[in-house]
Amino acid sequence: MARITGMEVLDVRFPTSRELDGSDAMNPDPDYSAAYVVLHTDGGPDGYGLTFTIGRGNDVQAAAIQSLEGQVVGKAVPETASELAALSAALVGDSQLRWLGPEKGVAHMAVGAVVNAAWDLAARRAGRPLWRMLAELSPEEIAGLVDYRYLTDALTEQEALDLLADAEPGRARRTEQLLANGYRAYTTSPGWLGYSDAKLVRLAKQAVADGFDMIKLKVGGNLEDDIRRMKLARAAVGDDIRIAVDANQRWDVDAAVQWMAALAPFDPYWIEEPTSPDDVLGHQAIAERIAPIRVATGEHVPNRVVFKQLLQARAISVLQLDASRVGGVNENVAILLLAAKFGVPVCPHAGGVGLCELVRHLAMFDFVAVSGTEADRSIEWVDHLHEHFTDPAKVRAGRYLAPLEPGFSARMHDATLRRFRFPDGPEWTEGG
Amino acid sequence: MARITGMEVLDVRFPTSRELDGSDAMNPDPDYSAAYVVLHTDGGPDGYGLTFTIGRGNDVQAAAIQSLEGQVVGKAVPETASELAALSAALVGDSQLRWLGPEKGVAHMAVGAVVNAAWDLAARRAGRPLWRMLAELSPEEIAGLVDYRYLTDALTEQEALDLLADAEPGRARRTEQLLANGYRAYTTSPGWLGYSDAKLVRLAKQAVADGFDMIKLKVGGNLEDDIRRMKLARAAVGDDIRIAVDANQRWDVDAAVQWMAALAPFDPYWIEEPTSPDDVLGHQAIAERIAPIRVATGEHVPNRVVFKQLLQARAISVLQLDASRVGGVNENVAILLLAAKFGVPVCPHAGGVGLCELVRHLAMFDFVAVSGTEADRSIEWVDHLHEHFTDPAKVRAGRYLAPLEPGFSARMHDATLRRFRFPDGPEWTEGG
Repeated sequence: MARITGMEVLDVRFPTSRELDGSDAMNPDPDYSAAYVVLHTDGGPDGYGLTFTIGRGNDVQAAAIQSLEGQVVGKAVPETASELAALSAALVGDSQLRWLGPEKGVAHMAVGAVVNAAWDLAARRAGRPLWRMLAELSPEEIAGLVDYRYLTDALTEQEALDLLADAEPGRARRTEQLLANGYRAYTTSPGWLGYSDAKLVRLAKQAVADGFDMIKLKVGGNLEDDIRRMKLARAAVGDDIRIAVDANQRWDVDAAVQWMAALAPFDPYWIEEPTSPDDVLGHQAIAERIAPIRVATGEHVPNRVVFKQLLQARAISVLQLDASRVGGVNENVAILLLAAKFGVPVCPHAGGVGLCELVRHLAMFDFVAVSGTEADRSIEWVDHLHEHFTDPAKVRAGRYLAPLEPGFSARMHDATLRRFRFPDGPEWTEGG
Repeated sequence: MARITGMEVLDVRFPTSRELDGSDAMNPDPDYSAAYVVLHTDGGPDGYGLTFTIGRGNDVQAAAIQSLEGQVVGKAVPETASELAALSAALVGDSQLRWLGPEKGVAHMAVGAVVNAAWDLAARRAGRPLWRMLAELSPEEIAGLVDYRYLTDALTEQEALDLLADAEPGRARRTEQLLANGYRAYTTSPGWLGYSDAKLVRLAKQAVADGFDMIKLKVGGNLEDDIRRMKLARAAVGDDIRIAVDANQRWDVDAAVQWMAALAPFDPYWIEEPTSPDDVLGHQAIAERIAPIRVATGEHVPNRVVFKQLLQARAISVLQLDASRVGGVNENVAILLLAAKFGVPVCPHAGGVGLCELVRHLAMFDFVAVSGTEADRSIEWVDHLHEHFTDPAKVRAGRYLAPLEPGFSARMHDATLRRFRFPDGPEWTEGG
């Protein structure tokens, strides 16, 4: 029986603030970073996971991951669905660590990184890409991955089982579809707030030429600027391309409504993160007042309990799960099942460091085994930093290719880890 | 001009799990702990703050506090209301660190510890206990302490000003009342889950003899046990003493309703933390279904945005603020103003390490300058660990005495810090 023999945690940071890639209304100068974890074993491959952060505090996130060492090192490598569920439950349920959340923020993201690394390890050992490993589990095994505590007023295990059983007959056909055609992507690359108008227009046109049918612009800095940029973007892409906008939590309820009224003539497809990710009732009020413009959120939603309420309150029309914000694969399976129950499409948040690599597995698993549809769904695509990953996300003609290599794709190249390690890697000691 | 010359952060843990003090349905074996921060200055007193945790992870919390060092060390000591508001805004608003929450969990509690230490420092320099320093600010200064982002759909700055102006005429009289009579307390000491029936009955009777008019029992472990314990407690204290019960987040909605139906014959005054602290809609459903039994929560509510929604949804009848969970004094002023706007009484969570010491200042400030009333309000009292503080909370005849010493009362004795420092203090190296 293979054992986990060690946990290694690295603080890896990329100096993205030098180029204003990733700039938005709340995050003017991010240094995209990862608190990166490796689970070493005494035979076979290691497992890799990460939490995405934007710079300062990545050391705190790394310390939180390290604090979980005693829960995994020395234990048998979890390989089955029930062993992975047990690991997730043990990490989430540690009563002393739970006090630091509960189930939110640094402590919960640390659990997510370790749970994701354990899934990566299991998928590598099984020789399967994670999305296929998940999609080959039985409905009972998938339903058994989820912690239903705090969910049963919206989703019971029996309801989850029924959903999964309904989707089972089409699995083989949809797997073939993914292998042949991939999964729809949309691109945020044109729309960062720090970009000039000329760069915005050039990148928007390029996105259409590259085959995307939706782009996204950051908004919320200055209304006149946003109106001008939205008008330029609409002129650049024409009426048939969807343009989503993203305020990165900038507004209160009234401000969101007023701002979106000013942008409405340019037909925004959704408004993302109009206000605090904790504000279910705020999102509900905004959604009612700006319909038919959709409300989207999720990248900062801390856990399944808040997603449950956003769905119960009909506060969102698009659910944006994130691979590294919540407690890992198990909680994201819960979130996919909740979205399917409420009939809300999941369009995962990506970009950052490694998020494109990770979320494609979750969206493809959803397509094969949960929702069974790609309608109104797409995965965010930001063409940053993929060169640092050993199994990088690839988009062709506006669609994510299905990953084929075993695992969950969080592994970075050794040369990257050496160069970008903070604060002692040469990228930082030599100033880039 | 005085400057902050250094920040010292200590991991301090008390081995409370050896006695099962503090045991409840979710936290069977807590080691009450504090991530403790000292702000050193180049003249005059230092400032003291802390985050309460229950053991493992206290080192992560300490690392998060340490990560804020660059934001305060080398800066002028904030002394005025506006300087303290600026410090709070700078700490909450750090865009890179904000990603780790936002405004929740380890990162946000770290902000709270530093903000509270800065208020302690300012109050010591002013020679005032914190509650008096706060209650002597003008309505404009108090209203200016608050970050209204995400609150304006429930509370605007003008509404806050109006509330504070209404309360201003009675301030002097209420200050005299506090100095003469203190503030009502209730006690949780009888009700820990790990205690025997005999100990429960003995401590419940003792509480009444000591002058308390309310006690609290932990519930949620086993229904038959809870019915028996509640019946014993009711028989011990009689019909005129309030008995609150506390499930520490144990239930889903239906379970909470069923459990409380079984306890209803024994007249529980409130049910505390029936479910996840993130579940506004869950609390709302429970509150509707178990009325007239009150629903209370707050000790794990991460920030003002969730408190706002609990109030908007009429999901709670009792708001339990916590001194060390949210972003410190400034955010707690926001929470007190929200509660006053909605007419919901605030009964602070205490116990733990230092929470009784801290929250009495907030409740007394509320009485003097915000709500202006003690009706249906009381502060939790747990008679643990006070001997470690230089200005310990004192309860006489069921009432907290008003603190008279300058500051916010988080300072521990040097001997305590030496003995209980983890992992190298003699309490831990010598095994107690």
